[in-house]
Amino acid sequence: MERKITVLPGDGIGPEVVASAVRVLQVIGKRFNHTFHLGYATIGGAAIDQHNNPLPDETIEMCENSDAILLGAVGGPKWDQNPPELRPEKGLLRIRKHFDLFANLRPVKAFPSLLDASPLKREVAENVDLMIVRELTGGVYFGEPRMRTENGAIDTTVYSKAEVERIVENAFELARLRGGKLCSVDKANVLETSRLWREVVEAKKKEYPDVIVEHNLVDSVAMKLITNPGHYDVVVTENMFGDILSDEASVITGSLGVLPSASIRGDNFGLYEPVHGSAPEIAGQGVANPAATILSVAMMLQYSFGLKEEAAEIERAVSAVFDDGYFTADLARDGSRILSTNEWTDKVINEIDTSF
Amino acid sequence: MERKITVLPGDGIGPEVVASAVRVLQVIGKRFNHTFHLGYATIGGAAIDQHNNPLPDETIEMCENSDAILLGAVGGPKWDQNPPELRPEKGLLRIRKHFDLFANLRPVKAFPSLLDASPLKREVAENVDLMIVRELTGGVYFGEPRMRTENGAIDTTVYSKAEVERIVENAFELARLRGGKLCSVDKANVLETSRLWREVVEAKKKEYPDVIVEHNLVDSVAMKLITNPGHYDVVVTENMFGDILSDEASVITGSLGVLPSASIRGDNFGLYEPVHGSAPEIAGQGVANPAATILSVAMMLQYSFGLKEEAAEIERAVSAVFDDGYFTADLARDGSRILSTNEWTDKVINEIDTSF
Ligand SMILES: CC(C)[C@H](C(=O)O)[C@@H](O)C(=O)O
Ligand SMILES: CC(C)[C@H](C(=O)O)[C@@H](O)C(=O)O
Repeated sequence: MERKITVLPGDGIGPEVVASAVRVLQVIGKRFNHTFHLGYATIGGAAIDQHNNPLPDETIEMCENSDAILLGAVGGPKWDQNPPELRPEKGLLRIRKHFDLFANLRPVKAFPSLLDASPLKREVAENVDLMIVRELTGGVYFGEPRMRTENGAIDTTVYSKAEVERIVENAFELARLRGGKLCSVDKANVLETSRLWREVVEAKKKEYPDVIVEHNLVDSVAMKLITNPGHYDVVVTENMFGDILSDEASVITGSLGVLPSASIRGDNFGLYEPVHGSAPEIAGQGVANPAATILSVAMMLQYSFGLKEEAAEIERAVSAVFDDGYFTADLARDGSRILSTNEWTDKVINEIDTSF
Repeated sequence: MERKITVLPGDGIGPEVVASAVRVLQVIGKRFNHTFHLGYATIGGAAIDQHNNPLPDETIEMCENSDAILLGAVGGPKWDQNPPELRPEKGLLRIRKHFDLFANLRPVKAFPSLLDASPLKREVAENVDLMIVRELTGGVYFGEPRMRTENGAIDTTVYSKAEVERIVENAFELARLRGGKLCSVDKANVLETSRLWREVVEAKKKEYPDVIVEHNLVDSVAMKLITNPGHYDVVVTENMFGDILSDEASVITGSLGVLPSASIRGDNFGLYEPVHGSAPEIAGQGVANPAATILSVAMMLQYSFGLKEEAAEIERAVSAVFDDGYFTADLARDGSRILSTNEWTDKVINEIDTSF
């Protein structure tokens, strides 16, 4: 197989973790006989510095001519005081919207060898294997009007039925491929958009008799993600709730530094990035944890290219390196061996190479 | 001191836990020489059944002639299919709005003897002592337009500067009385209302040089409430974020069943209720945990009546009964003695009586 990928290293530790992930990608290509053509472009703070634009036209164009995007991270104190249009995260919001990447997939799975780092008791966190499906291009993030008024400010949450239908359908499909359970999250006791959301889920579930569906209020899910995260399989929700709940979910297994994400649309195109941020405080030191970006490449192989075996091989290798007791500094604990970003990546690559 | 209190037992376990809390209130009155005049009225499902209205005019009128309101809980499966206007929680939303109860105070404090019930590791949860201050009468809960449209639905988040100012001021005052730290939560990288919110906090902080202020994004707080809840003192946020974060915070110490809340406005008037719901599945069995409602009475004494010593006495008594190993069924564990709602309340009352 031959594929074109646009690589957007971004800011902070972005370039370092992306370099690691690209190495792993190329090794997988070699081993399974695929050719991945990479093109590099800027986004976020780096793009503001070079082009005075967090998402330059050149970047958009290159992405348009690619099959998938690999992103590091954006942001840093350098640009924190910029006006809204010249802030790094604006590049992120715009690329999502431009490419209509409406489904944000955030898997959270406990790695047994990382559970000591979890704030939760082992017995609460150990069976976690869930996927949050967050609507990413609608809701209050993009609704109009959004403005200052004479004596205050307003934001608007807007959803069309079609927008809800496509994300809900996506979640049902994922539930079918995973554990067969879907939890739809809303605030139907207060919001009109939530009542619409709930109706769409109710209508759609007739097409998926094999999927067990529950509706839960967002406040109640915020509790249950902590008290009983093992309960969940696929969780689907709107943009703002998804932002909060997916970040909440990301810390329950102690593995925030190793969580990947995918932002996809109806076809095979998608953007893949680690859940963690640009971590400016450790940038340039070669100590960042590349696992989340490497696992994001695995998601790319699976969701954009349909390469399941290849994706599984990366996941297996990452797990094996953790099980062998090798960690980057963020996951340090008694008895573990601390490696640099590159050394840790080497371990993953060796694991892949030697497993022919 | 003489005070009038309207008691709204509500639904499910509401009447049972309220009865316990009223007994404790009367004992405190006797011991400290105060007279509390109680009037009873309906709200929620009980009010729908009797008056076809979740917040009848008689109830409003009685509350208007009182100094404070004690509420049990509302809701239950019986009314779940009702149209929005005839649902129990509508009574709650309307009473908040009618009495302009704009500040919802939700303290979360670890009881050492309850930490085994926490999903978090002991070392993460043990130092928790925070107060979430949630704006309760604005934002997307009441903003217009909120409606179905031709092809979808919309909700509107609205805040006036004055609405933000009064809640922020309230939070600063509380921070000054507590640990001197305030975390303001918003989504200023996306929302206009959040940028307004942040500006107001920045302006207000000049009047409180003794309070240490930080701004945090809601997604980041959703994480940190789990990874490092001991970091927080007072946390102030808007209505919808507050709904989610205060429920999230309520489970970190394992003591959801014992958490009180206050909903107050500028003067001394306020509504006090447990954080837990109506728990219809155990209603009428006499096994509900009355601690949260008893502690809500303590908040009433403190915030509406300025009776600090009396409030502290209730808190001390509740703690002592837990430390003695007495629990209601929800908190059962090895070696604990399980008491009924009334028996457990007796223990608290004895503790107060014998401590002259
Ligand atoms: C940076 C910010 C705008 C963004 C969001 O809220 O979507 C981030 O928190 C995320 O979840 O990717
Ligand atoms: C019942 C519901 C409308 C209410 C809210 O969202 O405010 C509840 O969750 C609460 O927090 O008191």
